[in-house]
Amino acid sequence: MRRRTGNATRTTVYFSVGAVSPRMIDLRSDTVTLPSDEMREAARDADVGDDVYGDDPTVNELEARAAELVGKEAALFVPSGTMGNQIAARVHADPGQEALVDAKAHVYKWEVGGFAQLSGLQVRAYDAGERAAPTPEQVRDHAREESLHVAGTGVLCLENTHNARGGVAVPKADVDAAADAARDLGIPVHLDGARLFNACVALDEDPKAMVEGVDTVMFCLSKGLGAPVGSMLAGSEAFIEDAVRVRKQFGGGMRQAGLIAAPGLVALDNIDRLADDHENARVLAEGLDAVAGLSVPTPDTNIVVVDSAGAGLTAEEFVSLCEGVDILGGTFGEYHTRFTTNLNVSQEDVETAVELVADAVESR
Amino acid sequence: MRRRTGNATRTTVYFSVGAVSPRMIDLRSDTVTLPSDEMREAARDADVGDDVYGDDPTVNELEARAAELVGKEAALFVPSGTMGNQIAARVHADPGQEALVDAKAHVYKWEVGGFAQLSGLQVRAYDAGERAAPTPEQVRDHAREESLHVAGTGVLCLENTHNARGGVAVPKADVDAAADAARDLGIPVHLDGARLFNACVALDEDPKAMVEGVDTVMFCLSKGLGAPVGSMLAGSEAFIEDAVRVRKQFGGGMRQAGLIAAPGLVALDNIDRLADDHENARVLAEGLDAVAGLSVPTPDTNIVVVDSAGAGLTAEEFVSLCEGVDILGGTFGEYHTRFTTNLNVSQEDVETAVELVADAVESR
Amino acid sequence: MRRRTGNATRTTVYFSVGAVSPRMIDLRSDTVTLPSDEMREAARDADVGDDVYGDDPTVNELEARAAELVGKEAALFVPSGTMGNQIAARVHADPGQEALVDAKAHVYKWEVGGFAQLSGLQVRAYDAGERAAPTPEQVRDHAREESLHVAGTGVLCLENTHNARGGVAVPKADVDAAADAARDLGIPVHLDGARLFNACVALDEDPKAMVEGVDTVMFCLSKGLGAPVGSMLAGSEAFIEDAVRVRKQFGGGMRQAGLIAAPGLVALDNIDRLADDHENARVLAEGLDAVAGLSVPTPDTNIVVVDSAGAGLTAEEFVSLCEGVDILGGTFGEYHTRFTTNLNVSQEDVETAVELVADAVESR
Amino acid sequence: MRRRTGNATRTTVYFSVGAVSPRMIDLRSDTVTLPSDEMREAARDADVGDDVYGDDPTVNELEARAAELVGKEAALFVPSGTMGNQIAARVHADPGQEALVDAKAHVYKWEVGGFAQLSGLQVRAYDAGERAAPTPEQVRDHAREESLHVAGTGVLCLENTHNARGGVAVPKADVDAAADAARDLGIPVHLDGARLFNACVALDEDPKAMVEGVDTVMFCLSKGLGAPVGSMLAGSEAFIEDAVRVRKQFGGGMRQAGLIAAPGLVALDNIDRLADDHENARVLAEGLDAVAGLSVPTPDTNIVVVDSAGAGLTAEEFVSLCEGVDILGGTFGEYHTRFTTNLNVSQEDVETAVELVADAVESR
Repeated sequence: MRRRTGNATRTTVYFSVGAVSPRMIDLRSDTVTLPSDEMREAARDADVGDDVYGDDPTVNELEARAAELVGKEAALFVPSGTMGNQIAARVHADPGQEALVDAKAHVYKWEVGGFAQLSGLQVRAYDAGERAAPTPEQVRDHAREESLHVAGTGVLCLENTHNARGGVAVPKADVDAAADAARDLGIPVHLDGARLFNACVALDEDPKAMVEGVDTVMFCLSKGLGAPVGSMLAGSEAFIEDAVRVRKQFGGGMRQAGLIAAPGLVALDNIDRLADDHENARVLAEGLDAVAGLSVPTPDTNIVVVDSAGAGLTAEEFVSLCEGVDILGGTFGEYHTRFTTNLNVSQEDVETAVELVADAVESR
Repeated sequence: MRRRTGNATRTTVYFSVGAVSPRMIDLRSDTVTLPSDEMREAARDADVGDDVYGDDPTVNELEARAAELVGKEAALFVPSGTMGNQIAARVHADPGQEALVDAKAHVYKWEVGGFAQLSGLQVRAYDAGERAAPTPEQVRDHAREESLHVAGTGVLCLENTHNARGGVAVPKADVDAAADAARDLGIPVHLDGARLFNACVALDEDPKAMVEGVDTVMFCLSKGLGAPVGSMLAGSEAFIEDAVRVRKQFGGGMRQAGLIAAPGLVALDNIDRLADDHENARVLAEGLDAVAGLSVPTPDTNIVVVDSAGAGLTAEEFVSLCEGVDILGGTFGEYHTRFTTNLNVSQEDVETAVELVADAVESR
Repeated sequence: MRRRTGNATRTTVYFSVGAVSPRMIDLRSDTVTLPSDEMREAARDADVGDDVYGDDPTVNELEARAAELVGKEAALFVPSGTMGNQIAARVHADPGQEALVDAKAHVYKWEVGGFAQLSGLQVRAYDAGERAAPTPEQVRDHAREESLHVAGTGVLCLENTHNARGGVAVPKADVDAAADAARDLGIPVHLDGARLFNACVALDEDPKAMVEGVDTVMFCLSKGLGAPVGSMLAGSEAFIEDAVRVRKQFGGGMRQAGLIAAPGLVALDNIDRLADDHENARVLAEGLDAVAGLSVPTPDTNIVVVDSAGAGLTAEEFVSLCEGVDILGGTFGEYHTRFTTNLNVSQEDVETAVELVADAVESR
Repeated sequence: MRRRTGNATRTTVYFSVGAVSPRMIDLRSDTVTLPSDEMREAARDADVGDDVYGDDPTVNELEARAAELVGKEAALFVPSGTMGNQIAARVHADPGQEALVDAKAHVYKWEVGGFAQLSGLQVRAYDAGERAAPTPEQVRDHAREESLHVAGTGVLCLENTHNARGGVAVPKADVDAAADAARDLGIPVHLDGARLFNACVALDEDPKAMVEGVDTVMFCLSKGLGAPVGSMLAGSEAFIEDAVRVRKQFGGGMRQAGLIAAPGLVALDNIDRLADDHENARVLAEGLDAVAGLSVPTPDTNIVVVDSAGAGLTAEEFVSLCEGVDILGGTFGEYHTRFTTNLNVSQEDVETAVELVADAVESR
């Protein structure tokens, strides 16, 4: 019950490197994006107040704009995407119920078991496969009606784009079909849209339309949009009222948060430029796929997944080889490595990356 | 967060019927077994004390005998198999970790989400398939090392026989292989042996040998052994010390429990006769398989699963048809029905059951 | 986070002794009562079924009779008083709320932190003092309205008789006043009536009347009534429907539980004879109070609390001294010792106890 | 179990007002302080990286400086004081244990029941009274040793200054005495130092010395120090390693957090000026105490508590009266109102406040 198991530190976790030097091309994640000068100016000049009391005008503006952007009644600023997802599950479902998620969902793989720990929710997982969203049949098959023995399904979580499945952009029709199937069973639907706008841009879909089928959506201002800190959770007014309180309980109530909401407002202007990241990802993927031994499917969005098994390289070996030529990526399975294009990476950078990695692989 | 979802009552749950009349042949579950006269006499005559203080000699005798039977240092009497499994998970793992289980494990499907609710454990499920136990590769693939993002694996739960997979008796070699793989990763292993002795009898394996590879095991005195109430949880002395305390917290500390421990002691003499249940199950399965439209694999133990799709009957329709001729079973999926032989069901009963069900199906 | 703290075993806990010999007069607790021959016969002859399916006629009879006895719509048989109380809190309150309890309540002191662990409830405690029940003002002062910062009150728990305050029998008027104050605030009320009938007998109050002001009540069949195992949880039909499910989750669903429900039915005939225990307690208290150095208030019911400070004896020393003359009691604070009369203790026994303890104290 | 209780919104909570106009003197809380130009410039110019990967140099600098300031091995930047306290409890104690706190502790009253909900901890409260810290006797009396029935004490939480007791600055000797008593029992000690430096300045105590007796300390950069967002949690390296992971689970991992860490670094230069807030509070208290009907003790630090009972005014009436003359405070009990001086409030402001409130009270 009380064995010492913890040895997790920030220096050992999955994508961390010792120090990132300027000459490195950092493709570990789009979370590493640096704020623009405009964002920094916005932070400096933000009109602020105590957001725990609802008195921060910049946060209020950001929440209103975010709600409008995704067509929901209200929105809430939270310190991280993880917190947004965890709050959503806590509000939608009762402790003792199940959360229905993909086997490779971020909420299941990389949120430290929060559903069970914070909300007493049991996870039930479907295998979304390459579609990256459940079919209506999968929703119906995995949904469970509460009984004497059974923990009923309290929430369905979708993810778009789907990170662990390679940045797959899930079409609106697939989101809607899954959400409709859940709704027919009385199950609320939350969308982990950490990279929602990547999906919208890739599929040329309006964000409002993309999420109209789900009850709530979380999207990140950081990542591809480039804000330094923060995510938005959007839904009905009643949902957001509950969410405010859960945010306080989880420790996410911040004071003069306008200082980080202001760059978040600027970040919302970056949606269209995600197309550049996607184009860069395509160039990177095609370039690497041409390297003998590497197999790289064309990405939907900004996440490129390289299979290095054909080169006889484990992901750890491949990441290390890349790091040796100043290209940073992250392991993503035993033989898979993830590169993520982002606003700090130019087209020239990805061309350089292709060259350097090709050389490194070929000259072993 | 607080929608009213509950409508579970004992009159609606999965195998319940209105009233069981004497002429019915009750194959719903081996949990319905009635205590023998010998058990009833043992209850009446039991030497008892306050077991919360450790003063009940009959409970102490039962715990000692149970520990000896499965070759563990100590054992604990608990009111139900569910409590035994839930205590084991709570003691082995830390809240915030993962429990690794089969997708069809009893602990996952039918224990009301207890792992998350009672112990803050996230479930990670492998698909054991017909083997009914994970391969070492599956254990390694699904085990997760704790990191900044990842809830590490805190316990592996096996199940033998495996109820939802059709009473499969998992060979010792498969149990050991899975347990060894877990142990190599520092993960403790619990075996849900609600029907452990069915497996041992079917495979002609000594119970001690069968569970020597796992750290802890729960087995039921009720079900096939016929005791009215109770299960045993066995493991090391240190484990049982912790388990006693968790049992108290879960509300499972009972007072003069010797009154039900005494029939439990008698029940331990019923192990060998499980062979009769298996033989009856074989007769039942072969008889029903010969009915046009029914498909029934030969069972390993006492659980017979009938696929009625070929007869154009859903499980609900088939169960209802059977009930019309006084044969009780339980739905076990959309087209699957479970019959469970047990000590209240004679060979004559199963022969009658075959005849009546065959007539009912054929004369529709 | 994971220090090894546990060293609790049944051999070290608070009232345990090595072995209870026949010549000892066991006043440790009324939980040690042994079942009568009539109870044992009832167990042997019980008509049973699978209570998880609701098929046990004896349990059903006991539940119906218990509900009728306390004037509630329905009742549920549970393995322990602790489970009954924990289920009640889980059903009444939402995780994240507060449970309002006395600082010396059994649910708070001796149920292993179950409210927080099993139900996510924060405890808020009032000091009931010698009254052993909160005043309406205390209820209003400690009740908390949910806000952004505040966990609202989800349940008020009363206790009658109040164990840790010396078996105080709380008058119906005080129960009602506290319950009314809670109800006015929309807070449901549960009564831990482990020794409910001791209160009713002492105050000559009908059980129905005694608990009409509370929503739910738990009472024990063990303790003074002498049943070997089990407690009843009573309330509205809707409440009991939810309680059945939580009982399953906590592992309290038992199979042919009629075998222990039958002695429970017999135990309900023992209510009137609790007056004997109270008379014996009075005799014991007055006898010991006459011993130089001991101070013993006249008890309301069957719990006698001896203050041995005046004799220069700590509770541990006093308990040890008593044990030396075969009188068993339990420490109940630094200088306080608890003796509990019960159906295995005759008037002659308490007279003997007074003599032996008086001698032992005086002849030090 | 699932009643709809929630009606908490940011417009109804305890200190909120509709809109704060420039002419208002805002004494609701020191959480409303606005960042200085220097802080805003620091935010704009901050050197940042992805702090989830440990790559943010400004956060790293802040964490190092915070650790040094309070003499602990390491420190962690968290989005709120609540999160800092909740993480500390989660890391120090095991679920199922007790947290020992003052009955008026912030962690108990105003953190939404987080200990139970997030960490499965039962609260046990002592009454610290005007001392605002427990005596060693209180620690010993309320600490509980784990047993079969008892949830052992897993952490002691102190608070300095103590908010709900009126900003009391607890002397180092009292902190040390309580912490020593806990340590002797093997119980780790956390200090909620949301306003730690107010205590240090008021008592002329070095922060290192002030907290050397406790294992961990949380202090806020917001509040009196004026940073817009964030608090620091400091302790041993092993503790902070665990805390990083719990922060991730609670959703407090932020990306380019340097943007808010930079103003936090500037805020650390504001420690000495807390003396001005204390002087202003003294002036305010003495001025209001001179008003007929108001009773105002001289404050230790920056929190002034006004008792308006003598004026026949409830706190709600008094707050409303003050708001009518543009002085904002917050109710703090039925007849008590809290005013909090802070860096946005000048000596002239408090003099004006005294005049306006005196007029308002006297001219009713």
